[in-house]
Amino acid sequence: MAISPQEAIHRRNLGALLRYVHLRGAASRAELTAGLGLNRSTIGALAARLAEAGLVREETPPSGGRAGRPSLMVRPDPTNFHAYALSVEVDRLRAARIGLGGEILDIRTAELAPGADCAAALDRLAALVDLLRPGTPAGGTAIGVGVALAGETRGADGTIRFRPAGAWTSETVSAALGLDRPCRVGNLADLAARAEHARGSARGLDDVVYLHGDAGISAGIITSGLAGTGRGIGGQVGHMVVNPAGRACRCGSRGCWETEIGEPAVGDRAGVLALVAAARAGEPAARDAVRRTGEWLGHGVANLVNILNPEAVVFGGTLREIYRAAAGHVRGRLLDMALPAFRERLRLSVPVLGDDAALVGAAELAFEQLLNDPLNTPPLNDPLNAPPLADPQNAPPLTGPLNAPRATTP
Amino acid sequence: MAISPQEAIHRRNLGALLRYVHLRGAASRAELTAGLGLNRSTIGALAARLAEAGLVREETPPSGGRAGRPSLMVRPDPTNFHAYALSVEVDRLRAARIGLGGEILDIRTAELAPGADCAAALDRLAALVDLLRPGTPAGGTAIGVGVALAGETRGADGTIRFRPAGAWTSETVSAALGLDRPCRVGNLADLAARAEHARGSARGLDDVVYLHGDAGISAGIITSGLAGTGRGIGGQVGHMVVNPAGRACRCGSRGCWETEIGEPAVGDRAGVLALVAAARAGEPAARDAVRRTGEWLGHGVANLVNILNPEAVVFGGTLREIYRAAAGHVRGRLLDMALPAFRERLRLSVPVLGDDAALVGAAELAFEQLLNDPLNTPPLNDPLNAPPLADPQNAPPLTGPLNAPRATTP
Repeated sequence: MAISPQEAIHRRNLGALLRYVHLRGAASRAELTAGLGLNRSTIGALAARLAEAGLVREETPPSGGRAGRPSLMVRPDPTNFHAYALSVEVDRLRAARIGLGGEILDIRTAELAPGADCAAALDRLAALVDLLRPGTPAGGTAIGVGVALAGETRGADGTIRFRPAGAWTSETVSAALGLDRPCRVGNLADLAARAEHARGSARGLDDVVYLHGDAGISAGIITSGLAGTGRGIGGQVGHMVVNPAGRACRCGSRGCWETEIGEPAVGDRAGVLALVAAARAGEPAARDAVRRTGEWLGHGVANLVNILNPEAVVFGGTLREIYRAAAGHVRGRLLDMALPAFRERLRLSVPVLGDDAALVGAAELAFEQLLNDPLNTPPLNDPLNAPPLADPQNAPPLTGPLNAPRATTP
Repeated sequence: MAISPQEAIHRRNLGALLRYVHLRGAASRAELTAGLGLNRSTIGALAARLAEAGLVREETPPSGGRAGRPSLMVRPDPTNFHAYALSVEVDRLRAARIGLGGEILDIRTAELAPGADCAAALDRLAALVDLLRPGTPAGGTAIGVGVALAGETRGADGTIRFRPAGAWTSETVSAALGLDRPCRVGNLADLAARAEHARGSARGLDDVVYLHGDAGISAGIITSGLAGTGRGIGGQVGHMVVNPAGRACRCGSRGCWETEIGEPAVGDRAGVLALVAAARAGEPAARDAVRRTGEWLGHGVANLVNILNPEAVVFGGTLREIYRAAAGHVRGRLLDMALPAFRERLRLSVPVLGDDAALVGAAELAFEQLLNDPLNTPPLNDPLNAPPLADPQNAPPLTGPLNAPRATTP
């Protein structure tokens, strides 16, 4: 199973090219040559090999005014490989078929009854996936499943806690769907953050806080370009105490952000929309509620800004509506509370992917292995990802002790 | 300047071996073989090349009871290569000569007069470094300078703001020291966090918050094993608002953590030590002050735990004394406020490296380039760190467009 350094590099470059077009869309060979720092003939060979595997298409662009042979466009092919993305939200379940390239090809929604448990939710999700299957073109392959769960999920120690209660493991999801494909589970806010970072409003930024409001407030936090809470840990920002003299919270503490911010922000979507509409119509009580909610939203965001100094804060879920209606109040609190040096480069926004951010992020979980090693035959641990490398003259088998200690960053 | 994949791998492996012994101390060839996943003859060749360059020593271990030839010990050699580590603290300046391997070989301290500016501080630091120089053994080389600055420092956009005021850039520090070596500047809490993560109480952990108390409270935050704020951004956790009805803070806001926690925690070291001693002696007012301070310390830590879910919180600077004296009160607040699932794996500790953590971290900044490419002739961008790699058959020059787009992590 030993592979040569040349072959390892070739596979890595295949992944880099596929990831480039998967995340950015169609690109000319000329753009790829510049963007990937590889020479033209290498790009040509890589694109041809990916096209042969059905992962990309090469197309002649519509002829422009310029002389000479136009550069072929390389485009991810969504027909042959897709992922199933599932999301378990506070009051609904969604399932989508998402093609390589990140396009949502089909999506189905079902209500999640209050009090439903994990098994019931999985049954509904399996039924939604069954509705998606017939749309798959002949020869199309589901490469995996990604699941976005609201509530707390934990990946590092294998334990997952969530809403609705039950065993949301890779195995139970796979079994419920009757799908013999890898299945990965993540936190909804984390996955939405990753999607907005890869494709949306936070593209190209290094430090991002994505806030998701539903029955509470959670966060997906990206630091130094990496999803720091991507392992499904943390981000329970709603339980930051913002007011020691505040109201009792369901977590047992007092004055938590999500308790102080109150019903309008963390209630159900319909309630939030109704409130915002009433405020827009000038109803005084609704305007007051929106103002107070915006101020508490700004208060918590200011704390996160002072702690993490993000370049962007993205308001998702119910917070999207609140932010849109109360942006001035949010900004007012930031002016009062956030450190000037941190405010000055801060961008506030709503998700470009809207409510679909978490689904798109869940699909990325499923695509990850394919992007790391597009030809994937056989599945291998790319040795270039595992420092240090074996001396090529004496390469040990790849199945050997390549699990070197994690590179420490002193 | 193109190098072969074999040569790139060899250089990377040299760096991996040197980093291993630099961070962990002397190791037998047998341990290195297992720890680095390389075979015995490769380890032998790498160690020999590093020894030839004066970076490590190979020694026969004291003979044990076991039969057979003992495995040679590989030990970082601190005599030939050292770093200068400087720290600019609230009321003092320190300069240390730190050998490869992380040992503090010599250290000097000077007072920092209140109101001193950057130029004055740099003069004093240069004088301290002059005191360190004569101790350097013949042939010893300073490979670089790392500076730990309290207050806010920003690296990403090139701007640095700090205490004392002035231009703390790599260039001004280099010029003041009259040293033609690379100089890197970082935030004191960030660097202390990195040092404790690499060598101290947080070794082997992925998610760590290091809190530093001096005139305020700052944090070095490590997520997923990476120093997320290592670029000197963020971590101004002292300006998280914990009490909207609290006291006015010098930042312009109200009820900030470092204001509410009060004088005892963020006063000068002598004041903190006196308070803690009085509380230990049973003086009621001092006991009360320590209790209140411990409770507010626990309050802020609980918020950080709920936001970031770290595996460890390390209390440095003046917070070390407060935590030691008031651990029960800190833990009491965590029991009330931190989410149970997050508390259960949390470890609270004080820095193993004590007050020297930031200096050791500053030295790591200076050693970084050497560890990435120990032979360093000529300085190169290791292509294995810059995905994607050039196809070896058509390798572009290393000085070419290898600045591929940052690998996105969808």
